[in-house]
Amino acid sequence: MAVEQILIDGEWVPAEEEATFQAVNPATGNTLAMNFPISGWADCDRALTAAADAASALRTVAPEQLAAFLDAYASNIESAATMIVEAAHEETGLPVTPRLKDVELPRTTNQLRQAAAAAREESWKRATLDIERNIRSCFAPIGPVIVFGPNNFPFAFNGVSGGDFAAAIAAGNPVIAKAHPLHPNTTRLLAEEARKSLAAVGLPGSTVQMLYGMSNENGLRLVSDARVGAVGFTGSRAAGLHLKRAAEDAGKPIYLEMSSINPVIFLPGSLAEDGEKLAKELVDSCLAGAGQFCTSPNLILLWNGEGAEILLASMAQAFSERPPQPLLSSAGQNQLNAGVEALADAGATLIAGGKNLDGAGYRYANTLLRTTGSKFLSHPHELQREIFGNATMAVTVEDIEELQAILALLEGNLTGTIYSAKSGADDAIYNAIEPLLRQKVGRLLNDKMPTGVAVSPAMNHGGPFPATSHPGFTSVGIPAAMTRFALLQCYDGVREERLPAVLRDEIRNPATWRSIDREWVRG
Amino acid sequence: MAVEQILIDGEWVPAEEEATFQAVNPATGNTLAMNFPISGWADCDRALTAAADAASALRTVAPEQLAAFLDAYASNIESAATMIVEAAHEETGLPVTPRLKDVELPRTTNQLRQAAAAAREESWKRATLDIERNIRSCFAPIGPVIVFGPNNFPFAFNGVSGGDFAAAIAAGNPVIAKAHPLHPNTTRLLAEEARKSLAAVGLPGSTVQMLYGMSNENGLRLVSDARVGAVGFTGSRAAGLHLKRAAEDAGKPIYLEMSSINPVIFLPGSLAEDGEKLAKELVDSCLAGAGQFCTSPNLILLWNGEGAEILLASMAQAFSERPPQPLLSSAGQNQLNAGVEALADAGATLIAGGKNLDGAGYRYANTLLRTTGSKFLSHPHELQREIFGNATMAVTVEDIEELQAILALLEGNLTGTIYSAKSGADDAIYNAIEPLLRQKVGRLLNDKMPTGVAVSPAMNHGGPFPATSHPGFTSVGIPAAMTRFALLQCYDGVREERLPAVLRDEIRNPATWRSIDREWVRG
Repeated sequence: MAVEQILIDGEWVPAEEEATFQAVNPATGNTLAMNFPISGWADCDRALTAAADAASALRTVAPEQLAAFLDAYASNIESAATMIVEAAHEETGLPVTPRLKDVELPRTTNQLRQAAAAAREESWKRATLDIERNIRSCFAPIGPVIVFGPNNFPFAFNGVSGGDFAAAIAAGNPVIAKAHPLHPNTTRLLAEEARKSLAAVGLPGSTVQMLYGMSNENGLRLVSDARVGAVGFTGSRAAGLHLKRAAEDAGKPIYLEMSSINPVIFLPGSLAEDGEKLAKELVDSCLAGAGQFCTSPNLILLWNGEGAEILLASMAQAFSERPPQPLLSSAGQNQLNAGVEALADAGATLIAGGKNLDGAGYRYANTLLRTTGSKFLSHPHELQREIFGNATMAVTVEDIEELQAILALLEGNLTGTIYSAKSGADDAIYNAIEPLLRQKVGRLLNDKMPTGVAVSPAMNHGGPFPATSHPGFTSVGIPAAMTRFALLQCYDGVREERLPAVLRDEIRNPATWRSIDREWVRG
Repeated sequence: MAVEQILIDGEWVPAEEEATFQAVNPATGNTLAMNFPISGWADCDRALTAAADAASALRTVAPEQLAAFLDAYASNIESAATMIVEAAHEETGLPVTPRLKDVELPRTTNQLRQAAAAAREESWKRATLDIERNIRSCFAPIGPVIVFGPNNFPFAFNGVSGGDFAAAIAAGNPVIAKAHPLHPNTTRLLAEEARKSLAAVGLPGSTVQMLYGMSNENGLRLVSDARVGAVGFTGSRAAGLHLKRAAEDAGKPIYLEMSSINPVIFLPGSLAEDGEKLAKELVDSCLAGAGQFCTSPNLILLWNGEGAEILLASMAQAFSERPPQPLLSSAGQNQLNAGVEALADAGATLIAGGKNLDGAGYRYANTLLRTTGSKFLSHPHELQREIFGNATMAVTVEDIEELQAILALLEGNLTGTIYSAKSGADDAIYNAIEPLLRQKVGRLLNDKMPTGVAVSPAMNHGGPFPATSHPGFTSVGIPAAMTRFALLQCYDGVREERLPAVLRDEIRNPATWRSIDREWVRG
């Protein structure tokens, strides 16, 4: 059977494969026809050499050309949208509409265009000038970026089209994308649009390369190679921690988004005011994408009492009634099942779902567990296990002190949410718990669910370890996400004509914000 | 014999010591009288608990109070300057004047005052507001910061008074400083001024704590403790890499400044125009502080020919004539000797010095080695070994290609310097080599020596691994150095009155720069 080719140095070429794999339609369980290669080291090595050449070439490319590529790529993705969406639907089981076609694909092209605008504006370089001393600094490209995309967003976080990709390219770096094995054909189609777009704007083909996979050993070798500038990874904690150590031991910055249970806290007054509406919002958030979002609420914290009982009854009913969406893979289904069992073993009680479903594809019953604050405090490690999928756990607490104790034991998370009474009745509790929650999460929300992640300059899609590997950076939000893939470069006493354009006395680009003698000025 | 006490939670208390040590006057070799404790884990644990409490308390402290502490501390250091300088002179052998009294101490108090000003201004928080979506983010304190200071700057990089300290405190974090064992009494005196200053402004005593030392095992345990926010380290590569792995495995950001050979390149025209003057500048730079600066030139790159021969002869003469300053320790002397021998073994030729000197204290002959580009290329690893002290090595190259090949093989460095003809005669060579050097160094200099590190907002005292552990950050320069010790915190839909002051619609502080809907505005 024919094996698909990999994208190296601007060309689709046969891999020097160690093995092959096929994707599966998770909605049916049927193996798909196409055959994809697992690359040996020779492929990684070729990609790295070409990427290193591209990195040199990109350093002299005008920002406008990078921006033109990102814009062209966004347009080409839109032109090919029907085909790409269909492939993603087949490989992920995610609905064509609204999810893939109307939400994720537009989000992805919007992100590419925001990155293009940021590349054009050049403010992301954070040019800082000390005129009197003639010391000047700015951010500059870090070199080849390896991007590992996750299973759950085949476009918006894809290694060849997602947030890390857009940020790395806009900062002037070539990307070597590793396709996620659950959606190789989607990634292939996207990579082809990238290839065409590079050619159209005259950038080196080696600016965007794509491999379908490599052995774990070669993955570790790849991220620690001397030619690499930095690494972006979104995926499981286990895989992430292996890559983290390999990259960091080699002195390479690696930005990982790993695991998060996204606590959502309902203060008593919020449920008294709006219990029914909030139950629906919560169910929608927990089951969106079959719960396979990085920001899906896995931990619901409630005051023990009538409001909690009504909410949980309402959730249990909705969980039982709504048809479960397919999970992304049989491995994901097994992990979800194991996670639910582990929570039950640690003392949580199942009040809805809790089993694999028969029939086509990988489906798991929408699952709701509950436990008490005191049980949580006796097994805080076991009971904050991430359950990736359409399952969540509620914890009823007795008082502020118990909730504070729970929050103090939480690991780092992407998000933390507090719903409180509009009347102000919950304000004293809010003030008592917010400082504890605040330090554990990258994004703190009020009165809304965490599953939406706006592509805003003020977004932080990040958070303390183990949610990510560095609490000072976001992976979503342009231009902030770009500085992850940059070197800070200082010029001390360097002659004017030798400075990068963004650091000269007279700047060429009227749109650029610069900090000159401690004042932000533009143009 | 009495053992000095450690500073824990605002009080000088006896250590639960595992051992004791004494410092040595490196100018005489005489052991000094005072006895300092090596702390066991119990001391580290007490410090961590107190620091965690301080971190909570500092989150509600007004920036003005942090600034008042830093200003008071600077003034108190100045009031006690005579005593502190004398202690540092005795422990380091560095000259009282100009070095300690007139240069390093004023630099240190200036740095503390710059940090105070940055804390007051609050622009370092990089408040970013997306008004329409009501998404807002800013930097916030990361929690207790452990600072390991180096041997070579007893004030300006001291764990209890230097750049990392000032940055961590100004960002709102408590500091646990580990004194360098070569200057414990200096550190004790500084810590006492910090203690008094905290009391004077009413900040918790646990904001600044100080230990004299701990076992390597406890050092690793300390940096990976759950209560730690981040770590700053300046010192040797070997020690740094151990701490790096321990902290990173625990998910803690650690910022290390480790080793750098700081290449200085003289293009032919520069020597033709100004050879004599440049020889003197270079000698001054290489021998400043007995060569024990992080930015001391260890690698001089020259065109083979008459200009190089004149420069090297002039350097050799000056190296022979100038009296060597004492090194900081006998261990440093041994390492320097071993380094020079290793360079000679790898093919470099000794043309001045190369031996320990008899007499009082730890002195090593000012040492100059030379080799050729082709020899360097045959042993690139061995010949870029850092030699920390009054020794340097020149490499004569045959042509641009050879120099390019050398630059391509360099590890990351803090600085890289190019001297070129004022006439423009060297510009073609400059343009051919600059892109290679640029990617290897944090700070690129023209026509000046790298040993001065201005405390400027545009400074980058940083660079690619192994010079530091992250190429996107600087350890010198306010406010940039502060964001190393910060969390990025996003507020999504959070009610106005619950936002930190810096993120509200109406800002309290008229001095603060904020990015509002992609425009930088102040006040």
